[in-house]
Amino acid sequence: MNIGVLGTGTVGRTIASRLVELGHAVTMGARQAGNDNATAWASAHHGRAGTFAEAAEFGAIVVNCTAGTGSLEALAAAGDRHLAGKVLIDVSNPLDFSAGLPPTLAVANTDSLAERIQAAYPATRVVKALNTVTASVMVRPDTVPGDHLVFVAGEDADAKELVRGLLGEFGWPAARVLDVGGVRAARGLEMYLPLWLSLYGALGTGEFNIAVHAAQ
Amino acid sequence: MNIGVLGTGTVGRTIASRLVELGHAVTMGARQAGNDNATAWASAHHGRAGTFAEAAEFGAIVVNCTAGTGSLEALAAAGDRHLAGKVLIDVSNPLDFSAGLPPTLAVANTDSLAERIQAAYPATRVVKALNTVTASVMVRPDTVPGDHLVFVAGEDADAKELVRGLLGEFGWPAARVLDVGGVRAARGLEMYLPLWLSLYGALGTGEFNIAVHAAQ
Repeated sequence: MNIGVLGTGTVGRTIASRLVELGHAVTMGARQAGNDNATAWASAHHGRAGTFAEAAEFGAIVVNCTAGTGSLEALAAAGDRHLAGKVLIDVSNPLDFSAGLPPTLAVANTDSLAERIQAAYPATRVVKALNTVTASVMVRPDTVPGDHLVFVAGEDADAKELVRGLLGEFGWPAARVLDVGGVRAARGLEMYLPLWLSLYGALGTGEFNIAVHAAQ
Repeated sequence: MNIGVLGTGTVGRTIASRLVELGHAVTMGARQAGNDNATAWASAHHGRAGTFAEAAEFGAIVVNCTAGTGSLEALAAAGDRHLAGKVLIDVSNPLDFSAGLPPTLAVANTDSLAERIQAAYPATRVVKALNTVTASVMVRPDTVPGDHLVFVAGEDADAKELVRGLLGEFGWPAARVLDVGGVRAARGLEMYLPLWLSLYGALGTGEFNIAVHAAQ
């Protein structure tokens, strides 16, 4: 499948590399053509590098791996006409580092980044996913033992099924992909980040994840 | 030990009953003397019922089980002189139902209820704990299988150790009580609630909890 990955940071490069490894064709999009990270990645991984617009146009699926505080700007550059009708997997977190560490969220509680993206691109099928784990765990969940979960949230059931399939290729069994509801549920997935950061501090590693156990 | 439980709802009654069962002396505090819930509870469980001030005065430890949006008012009624120097276990969540379901948080992201309480009562040693699980799981964690966790956050290490001991009496092994840091980490514990509510919806029960698995 042709997939556009927006963002050239660790998350974008990790997801793009795994997608290529799984046989997908990937264009990595950056703010500027000729972005060093994207060019180097494309050269090393038999991928393509381009602008946000070129990556979005290329992808039958688009993955938003940009920094959360820049995501709306990146999607505007990608262009509504290149996003309309497509599934957009929103991996981003609206982390605001402007007041130092630990970050707060640029949007929280009464709104979420995923909801803002869905509202700005109503013809795009936004699925929030993967933002609750570090990049290496996103694409290789078996690096962490146990029956830990990844979550999906979004309005479009078919889009969530498509994302579930892609997550399955990454190594997430269907039973460990939990649908938490519509796009509003992205609030909870984004608001988990402060606890994630505390757990990172307590555990001394970002390579962890949560499992959910219920009474029998 | 003498323990004051502030609040007469499900959480307050569940914690108070378990404390009596474990041999502690409990006064349940309510806004008004003669509160029906508190009086009925005291009669059934060999406890005492009183005002917030009487419960706080009675307790060597005070447990805040009031609704989050009313906690600061309840603690003001309890009185600084009855709280100073004591450990206050803050179980509350600042859930705001004023705009309907699902609730938002009355304070989030750049502050937390626990931080507000600690700021208002600097001579009190606030420990955020137990707010991430439903009442029945708080006091009987073995109702949920697996190595799921409870979290503590607060500034005072001795207070957190005391709370760890009380959690141990409830049935939480020390290895499953994770210290996530100072009182600021309460933000993450409170901001987990929207995800908790989504999980409740997805699982169809509130009797669940999260375990954290890390890469080896």
